[in-house]
Amino acid sequence: MDHEERRRELAAAAWRVILREGIEGVSVRSVAAEAGWSVGALRHYFGTKEELLAGAARLVVERVKERFERGRYEGTPREAVRRMLCEVLPLDEERREEGRVWLAFTAHSLVDPRVALEHEVVFDGVRELCRRVIGRLADEGLLSPRLDPEEEVVRLHALVDGLTLHRLLGRLGEEETLAALDAHLRGILGEDGRSRPGVSSGGGIQPPR
Amino acid sequence: MDHEERRRELAAAAWRVILREGIEGVSVRSVAAEAGWSVGALRHYFGTKEELLAGAARLVVERVKERFERGRYEGTPREAVRRMLCEVLPLDEERREEGRVWLAFTAHSLVDPRVALEHEVVFDGVRELCRRVIGRLADEGLLSPRLDPEEEVVRLHALVDGLTLHRLLGRLGEEETLAALDAHLRGILGEDGRSRPGVSSGGGIQPPR
Repeated sequence: MDHEERRRELAAAAWRVILREGIEGVSVRSVAAEAGWSVGALRHYFGTKEELLAGAARLVVERVKERFERGRYEGTPREAVRRMLCEVLPLDEERREEGRVWLAFTAHSLVDPRVALEHEVVFDGVRELCRRVIGRLADEGLLSPRLDPEEEVVRLHALVDGLTLHRLLGRLGEEETLAALDAHLRGILGEDGRSRPGVSSGGGIQPPR
Repeated sequence: MDHEERRRELAAAAWRVILREGIEGVSVRSVAAEAGWSVGALRHYFGTKEELLAGAARLVVERVKERFERGRYEGTPREAVRRMLCEVLPLDEERREEGRVWLAFTAHSLVDPRVALEHEVVFDGVRELCRRVIGRLADEGLLSPRLDPEEEVVRLHALVDGLTLHRLLGRLGEEETLAALDAHLRGILGEDGRSRPGVSSGGGIQPPR
């Protein structure tokens, strides 16, 4: 096993501690015990509790990125961006675990500002995904022309994190989660107005304000 | 001071402990010290740590409800629902405190299922507000007719909680938060399609699918 694999093995052990006891349960000692390593051997990879937490946060982003690289985002742009967004929603056990670790970092960062940096790595990763989705739709001419792309990035990110939260709390079924995502996509694609593109009097021309 | 006022005074002391140390910092002892009460006197109001936590969670909902009762939701239905939604977004220090307590309960409920019940009180309160907003818009005939009201309640709730989260994390300015809320309102009112109501060929009549 190379250095990188061992680093991930230890970050995964930190996750298990976080999922069981919360961020406050993480220490060099508790993670070494969880991984079945000696404290000395662990310190070779993560010297401090802070480094361990940073490693655990990076693992969330790495896992999502790897799914992106493996994923085939083919089909219509609409199908492609829908599948991209599903990569971050907690729809299976793997993504649910990531979500719970994300939420633990998020909440803890409010109490302990030293954890804020770790949380930002994950925030920035999801923000970047939302930017790619809105950018792709805008490039394809699919984004409803009255929408402001930057505002839509913010709105989509808030929606995705809100759905993630409600799903993790067990208050939202998988079907409801996807229905809300689809309603949002219809909205930003301009498919849910009182008129549909191509049906209105204006055709392809922007109607007067 | 009557019984109810003293109960709130103690719940407020529990909040201060939560905001400083997280949910795990709450105990009958730590809250008594925070309030400057004896443990025996506190137990007269909250016998256990669990009762204290339930009291602290109820205080979030009570404060929002009181603002609702004080609030004047006049003007157009659109202005009224916008002001209602602003009551739960962390736009000032009072609402930011409520938000941080809410997030602490939310995250802790994933690690400790006994706290899940406390979190549900707050979830149900915000869900009910979103239901009132969508219901009001639907009653006034303002909700875009192609939208499913129940789906829109789920979507609005996810958006509000997502914006709350990002604002609490200091990653969203007040202006951006309100811009995202307004973009969402325009969307569900059918004002951001490629055609606007009253401008399309159909006028008040539903255009053919």
